[in-house]
Amino acid sequence: MKLDKLVGERFKERPADCVIDSHALMVRGGYMKYVANGIYSQYMPLKRIMRKIEQIIREEMDAVDGQEVLFPVVLPGSLWEESGRYESVGSELLRMKDRNGSPLVLGMTHEEAAVQLVREYGGSYTRYPFMVYQIQTKFRDEPRARGGLIRVREFTMKDAYSFHTSQEDLEAYYKECFRAYERVYKRAGLKNVVAVASDSGMMGGNISHEFMFVTPVGEDSLALCPQCGYRANMEAAECVAPAPASDGEKSRALGKVPTPGMQTIEEVCNFLNLPKEKSCKAVIYQKDDERYVVLFIRGDLEINETKLINFLKATVRTAVITEDSGLLAGYIGPVNLKAGCEVLYDRSLQGAAGLCCGANEVNYHFTGLNMERDCPGAVFNDFAKIREGDACPQCGEHAITLERGIEIGNIFQLGTKYTKAMGMHYLDSEGNQQLPVMGCYGIGVGRLAASVCEESHDNFGPIWPISIAPWQVHLCCLRADDGEAKAFADSLYKDLQARGMEVIYDDRLLSAGVMFSDADLLGVPVRVVVSPRNMKDGCCEISTRDKSVSMKAPVAEAADEVEALVKKLSGELTI
Amino acid sequence: MKLDKLVGERFKERPADCVIDSHALMVRGGYMKYVANGIYSQYMPLKRIMRKIEQIIREEMDAVDGQEVLFPVVLPGSLWEESGRYESVGSELLRMKDRNGSPLVLGMTHEEAAVQLVREYGGSYTRYPFMVYQIQTKFRDEPRARGGLIRVREFTMKDAYSFHTSQEDLEAYYKECFRAYERVYKRAGLKNVVAVASDSGMMGGNISHEFMFVTPVGEDSLALCPQCGYRANMEAAECVAPAPASDGEKSRALGKVPTPGMQTIEEVCNFLNLPKEKSCKAVIYQKDDERYVVLFIRGDLEINETKLINFLKATVRTAVITEDSGLLAGYIGPVNLKAGCEVLYDRSLQGAAGLCCGANEVNYHFTGLNMERDCPGAVFNDFAKIREGDACPQCGEHAITLERGIEIGNIFQLGTKYTKAMGMHYLDSEGNQQLPVMGCYGIGVGRLAASVCEESHDNFGPIWPISIAPWQVHLCCLRADDGEAKAFADSLYKDLQARGMEVIYDDRLLSAGVMFSDADLLGVPVRVVVSPRNMKDGCCEISTRDKSVSMKAPVAEAADEVEALVKKLSGELTI
Repeated sequence: MKLDKLVGERFKERPADCVIDSHALMVRGGYMKYVANGIYSQYMPLKRIMRKIEQIIREEMDAVDGQEVLFPVVLPGSLWEESGRYESVGSELLRMKDRNGSPLVLGMTHEEAAVQLVREYGGSYTRYPFMVYQIQTKFRDEPRARGGLIRVREFTMKDAYSFHTSQEDLEAYYKECFRAYERVYKRAGLKNVVAVASDSGMMGGNISHEFMFVTPVGEDSLALCPQCGYRANMEAAECVAPAPASDGEKSRALGKVPTPGMQTIEEVCNFLNLPKEKSCKAVIYQKDDERYVVLFIRGDLEINETKLINFLKATVRTAVITEDSGLLAGYIGPVNLKAGCEVLYDRSLQGAAGLCCGANEVNYHFTGLNMERDCPGAVFNDFAKIREGDACPQCGEHAITLERGIEIGNIFQLGTKYTKAMGMHYLDSEGNQQLPVMGCYGIGVGRLAASVCEESHDNFGPIWPISIAPWQVHLCCLRADDGEAKAFADSLYKDLQARGMEVIYDDRLLSAGVMFSDADLLGVPVRVVVSPRNMKDGCCEISTRDKSVSMKAPVAEAADEVEALVKKLSGELTI
Repeated sequence: MKLDKLVGERFKERPADCVIDSHALMVRGGYMKYVANGIYSQYMPLKRIMRKIEQIIREEMDAVDGQEVLFPVVLPGSLWEESGRYESVGSELLRMKDRNGSPLVLGMTHEEAAVQLVREYGGSYTRYPFMVYQIQTKFRDEPRARGGLIRVREFTMKDAYSFHTSQEDLEAYYKECFRAYERVYKRAGLKNVVAVASDSGMMGGNISHEFMFVTPVGEDSLALCPQCGYRANMEAAECVAPAPASDGEKSRALGKVPTPGMQTIEEVCNFLNLPKEKSCKAVIYQKDDERYVVLFIRGDLEINETKLINFLKATVRTAVITEDSGLLAGYIGPVNLKAGCEVLYDRSLQGAAGLCCGANEVNYHFTGLNMERDCPGAVFNDFAKIREGDACPQCGEHAITLERGIEIGNIFQLGTKYTKAMGMHYLDSEGNQQLPVMGCYGIGVGRLAASVCEESHDNFGPIWPISIAPWQVHLCCLRADDGEAKAFADSLYKDLQARGMEVIYDDRLLSAGVMFSDADLLGVPVRVVVSPRNMKDGCCEISTRDKSVSMKAPVAEAADEVEALVKKLSGELTI
């Protein structure tokens, strides 16, 4: 490919609307173009990167006996009605009607389509296990598209669906897929990846993992324990129960104290000279039917609303406390709470004593609250957000660190949610009807490309790993009006291509500065510079985009050296 | 790949809803599954065929300097408003709104997206010509999906867009693309393809060609001249003017004759003892604004409504003739026609004389109509449908034959329709602003796959050309419970794979009949059968799906023979 023919513009200025570096560089480098909110076109360099990532994924899915299929982008609404998700999924699911008024949706995930495809095939236990996958365009009507390819509305995704006759078989296969995912990231050259236990959200099922690219620009928060290797999405990270209160604290009596006008934990604790850990905070939510939910939690902790929603199996919002609710904002406590609302207790209060809390009376709080004694029958569940330095739910060490990450893959053990809802059965070896157990496995291709760019770039452009780089070799001929330089560069271009290398060749009559800026933006790993000055010494320059290699090679050995370097770089990413 | 693991069901019965063979075989063979009207999922064998066709197309597009890009499936309505097609295209264009109420459409063709992608890049003449293409899912809300993959609503298409600084440059490139298309069909193994001049329809532009797979099950009609090679879609085939009438006919006087109750050409001609060629028929249409269009044509001819619509640049429908229209149905003629309607004359009437026609008076017709004399000022245009045996518009021989065909590709010279509407300009070498000239080039991948199947199948299944077959070799081990046969088949399977061949291996313990039925349905070109009986002779059987090769090979030479056969078949489809 001659660079002067490459469609797309490269420029120096960082676009004002690009918040993260990978987005800015991929716009500046002529990789992508904005079409609409969260919708982009891809120029040739990005399309080549995407195809290489897709091929890596395809090979790894084939290696775990996956069969590539293709599901439709446009699905009948009736299919999503079968699973119940036509109603339950929010407006991320783009719904529309065809010319006959039949409801259609744009596929954002394909569990329904997968079950529909194999429902009859999977009628006998002898056909299990099997896995089908596709690499296809998806659409999710995201309310907040951001970060270029990191969060878009239209995206290319590999999604896989496995079917099993037992939970044990699913779990064994799930582990194989887990390892296949690790290989995908390694081969794509992404280093800083951790797998975390995750909340399964709308997908259903129980056990699931997210593969997270750890980066400060990530949207997700991760809880990691460097002591034992525990890793979880903050949404899913369990908070362990604290040590129970001492006997001394437990023996203190409940006493009402006047706290005039003090409505916040800070005000009350300051006034009572208590640390916030010694308070019982009330947080009030409302369900869709307006009913109140009062959640008591230790005063120094925050609520993880995902845990709350999963517990309630219902969405909630911050409450509007009305006069007739029976709730006295600022003075709500677990003792003498009269209002007819649902009351929940966070695990942080389990066994706690010597706490202050609202007295359900304006301008009064209690002190000496002993949960066991004063709230008999309270059931404690985990609703709190884990914090830096908290106890690890796995090893118990107070070593939790928080990091930010971008989700670059997820795997779910779905159980029988979809097969049950959609009536997929098989006959077991004894002729009994059974429900197949499913797993599903997703990777966003564009998001992975952007993550690699985010991890591996400098101020001048991406530094693409050779396995996914748009080309392997970037050949620059400086002063292409010099006959000798041009003739050698032309012959080297042909030679490298004949050896099977992917070469982008820049023989424009431009300054070295412009040519090198463009080369930096294209981020091709191996660079060869031919110039009249080096030709005088019978040499050309060979270097890597990451600057780890920089050498001069005699012209007669140039092609051999480049080939060896390409092989070496490729070998480093081969598993 | 082991056949016993292949997801998808194969069966014998022809599905009742399958009209054409390729559809029936691709359903029976486990290639595709119905999801909704015109929407299918693809199982692995079809997905593999699709990918091979896509790769052939990709290579041929790259060979004409195309750059692979990717446009969005979901496009903002505003982009289609720029070209005017948001309004002008009918309900094939699926329109919807996102969560914020912004109009979106599903891309059915991507001229707008192509111009949007390169509008800034193409700002200088130095950057021309260039071509971008994509292989992507499209959606067209077809009123009548039919024939399996022949006419679907969701489909995979390669669409390419070229940009030029002159019509001459476009024409030169158009010819290159024309030849690239011929190579695609040849490499995909489709033989019976003709390129025909076509009507450009909603795409705009003037010169365009359709590549037609000639088959009795085609939806399109083609006019072909075996004498000179003229080829056109019937929609676009020109009808030439007939020889002028003789002086004797011209000299006959116009005379009114009573034709009581006779309203059809048949009745009037029978009564007057005239051939239908000697009548002037009136066909009445109405435009969207209710205005009448009266088209006179020779009585033996039919109207090609596409020609009429293109001439009027407006859609028309068959008229409802009301009493106050001034038109007397059954008696309408060109002389004394009073009604205030648009009057058109088909070229078949040019120079004609001695005709009968309506007298615009109930129960009366004229005879002796001389167009030149009696319809002074009439302008004659081509509105007729060409017929078998008609004069060829190219060589004049009365040799036209009609065939049916399936459109498997189309190429258009678009001119400046889109660049003008969307404000894409470039500066020429003298600094003047100019409009780029565009071409566009489409191939439906699934329709091509189905066409190959339609052309190349027998009663038992498809006969895939090796270039697009899901696998190259189908290995059957009969009686896999026989140790010797199974051991040899297993080793041959490994050997063939190690030599780079794509093998599907059937070692199920089933009857030879079932195994061969499945092999026929999968249509893999080279078949190897290992059986205990042949093992006794130290042989296995090697044959081709099309039965042109059938041999026994000693086991020691089996892999060599298979490899040679695969190479020979591949070589026949290489250009």
